[in-house]
Amino acid sequence: MITASVCTIGDEILIGQIVDTNSSTISRALGAVGVQVTHMVSIGDLRGDILGTLSQELENHDIVITTGGLGPTKDDITKGVLAELSGSTGYVEHAGQLAVIHDLLHSRGLEVLDVNQAQAQVPDRCEVIVNRRGTAPIMVFRLGKSTLYAMPGVPFETEAALPDVIADIAQHHELTSIRHRNVMTYGLAESALSKKIAAWEDALPADMHLAYLPGPLVGVKLRLSVYGGDPEEVESRLDAQLQSLRGLLGDTIYAWDDTTLEKALGELLLRKGKTLSAAESCTGGEISHLITSVAGSSAYYLGSVTSYAISVKENVLGVPAETIGKYGVVSSEVALAMAEGVRALTGSDYAVATTGLAGPGGGDGVNPDGTVWVAVSGPHGSESRKYQYRNDRIRNIERFSASALYFLLSFVKSDLSC
Amino acid sequence: MITASVCTIGDEILIGQIVDTNSSTISRALGAVGVQVTHMVSIGDLRGDILGTLSQELENHDIVITTGGLGPTKDDITKGVLAELSGSTGYVEHAGQLAVIHDLLHSRGLEVLDVNQAQAQVPDRCEVIVNRRGTAPIMVFRLGKSTLYAMPGVPFETEAALPDVIADIAQHHELTSIRHRNVMTYGLAESALSKKIAAWEDALPADMHLAYLPGPLVGVKLRLSVYGGDPEEVESRLDAQLQSLRGLLGDTIYAWDDTTLEKALGELLLRKGKTLSAAESCTGGEISHLITSVAGSSAYYLGSVTSYAISVKENVLGVPAETIGKYGVVSSEVALAMAEGVRALTGSDYAVATTGLAGPGGGDGVNPDGTVWVAVSGPHGSESRKYQYRNDRIRNIERFSASALYFLLSFVKSDLSC
Repeated sequence: MITASVCTIGDEILIGQIVDTNSSTISRALGAVGVQVTHMVSIGDLRGDILGTLSQELENHDIVITTGGLGPTKDDITKGVLAELSGSTGYVEHAGQLAVIHDLLHSRGLEVLDVNQAQAQVPDRCEVIVNRRGTAPIMVFRLGKSTLYAMPGVPFETEAALPDVIADIAQHHELTSIRHRNVMTYGLAESALSKKIAAWEDALPADMHLAYLPGPLVGVKLRLSVYGGDPEEVESRLDAQLQSLRGLLGDTIYAWDDTTLEKALGELLLRKGKTLSAAESCTGGEISHLITSVAGSSAYYLGSVTSYAISVKENVLGVPAETIGKYGVVSSEVALAMAEGVRALTGSDYAVATTGLAGPGGGDGVNPDGTVWVAVSGPHGSESRKYQYRNDRIRNIERFSASALYFLLSFVKSDLSC
Repeated sequence: MITASVCTIGDEILIGQIVDTNSSTISRALGAVGVQVTHMVSIGDLRGDILGTLSQELENHDIVITTGGLGPTKDDITKGVLAELSGSTGYVEHAGQLAVIHDLLHSRGLEVLDVNQAQAQVPDRCEVIVNRRGTAPIMVFRLGKSTLYAMPGVPFETEAALPDVIADIAQHHELTSIRHRNVMTYGLAESALSKKIAAWEDALPADMHLAYLPGPLVGVKLRLSVYGGDPEEVESRLDAQLQSLRGLLGDTIYAWDDTTLEKALGELLLRKGKTLSAAESCTGGEISHLITSVAGSSAYYLGSVTSYAISVKENVLGVPAETIGKYGVVSSEVALAMAEGVRALTGSDYAVATTGLAGPGGGDGVNPDGTVWVAVSGPHGSESRKYQYRNDRIRNIERFSASALYFLLSFVKSDLSC
């Protein structure tokens, strides 16, 4: 088994100002190709720490991946330390990265400064993987039995460059082939889910590994993996296992590949040629943001109204004042009126609406914080559901939005009987 | 300077299944009392790794704090390894923790199993800080010049026990203070910013450390830190440095503490008793989501319209079809009509609007992907600005939204001449 160490470099992580998400992103990507991360380290922007730690990690692992410390500013010293560590005798300019630097800055209407140009300079002992989303190149140092990959710290640049890094690793190492199947579930907590499929999980063959990957916005992703073996034979065995899983989980499963609720919803609407709109209160725009984060969503998404104020609920969405007065803002009736209101306003085939309390405010006297009413509406009628969570504001908004998307997806599926 | 290492123990972090938030929580708490975290490590549930890593961290730091690995299940072996490491000769039962274990499980209607009882057993060489929110006690090992604190892995248990751990550290060490100042800037890339303040940065006293912390949604946060020194004297020196920084950066600075554009905007609107609404096209709800992610935003935020379809721009926001026909959807004129339209629709004091191309679609023939027109409107008139980026869809939506919030914040500030 090829082993790896992931090292983050930068004071911002050490002092706790930033939560390190790069390490888990990288670890998941490496695990997917059978490279095992056995160590994660965070160090500051200090020459001694960087030299000492990296030397040791290189000693103990086949692969060391660093993130951060490559910015153009004075506090980023990693490149110089890596030049020293690799015994480089000088710096060379990488034309490919230089071109990206110019493109990126010009596209933002910024002039290319010396400090930007300097980012294309790399130690002469390294190979370069071009960073297409940022100015700092990925530097590859082949140091005897170990290889060091120096990646930028900006998560979105790291994610974009990871496939190239993985490809380079695959090119230089004998990786055991690994096959994954992803099953997207929503509505059951990890613990409840594991209990429901415990017998099935216990009966899995020894070479099959099941991973639970929960996320507030996707539910729980189940990943079934097999290392090695004959590809075709493995695929058919995976198919068989997923069939039995379908029998156990039914509608809890909303997709059979690695996707999200908003993507699965978008694919369905696009395939059926239907349109969608949204009316949001407590989710404040997050549902609309999730829907429109999908490329091509303008083909089926008409728009939304965020009715944070009661006046907007009444005047824009046409929710009757009596309904609000009689049932309260956080109610099935208001959610339904919002969904039907925005559907009429935009002329969409389907609509979703939310009204609830994200907190913190201590509730409205009737409903505690974490309560949300979700309504969905379509050509054949409307439905509403109540969900109750107990998290902080941000997490509640995420849960509300994901629950609404899951409810909407199930509703549209059954409405279109597919 | 007292130094510390924070170690997380558990496979779930190494394989990327969980993002480690404990380390940053602990690091912030330690930093606040002048204990500098110089190393963070994540290791798996393996005796060798735990023994080897902890021995080394204890060798190099005054304080080592571990989280995780203390559960009741077989895979959690940390307690046994710590007994070995500390040369304990046996285990003793801690009455205080045992009482908490019984209380917690009874309150959840669960019976107390042997594995639960066993969690009150601790190595005889450790002191105990009772964990009031969980079953695993915090174990304190005083090992010569270094002290090891073993804390549970559940974040809300760790957070609850931290004050007691900090108190114990303060009792046993002479703590120096660390003082940070944060300055929030927007509109200048990290490189341009560093060039603009290069002379100032070079002239900083040796004991002042400047860090650049860029984020797509906040701009670039500058953090100025001083370790040790007389608190009052340090504060006044920091004040003086920030004063000269103000002269150099002017409006690029939007806040003088660790905040976000949406929070700074919210505080201003709340203080002035003004209201806000938004009309979003290409940002798809992200601006509304950011504004409403701030607790208490319902006091100044009325709502928004996401007009993804042209029909919604015309029928809901009242953008004249001729304006769209004459200038195109992505234009200053349409952005202004959207802002004024939603301001009239909701009756808010201020409004912001966006229309552009997040991509990927190859542009509209006139504007490339990454183009956005932002308009702001208030009691004394409206303004619009064009921004050009070139990222992927998600990143463009973030940049568009942050630029719109910064433009809006500047506009409201000058409109209220504050």
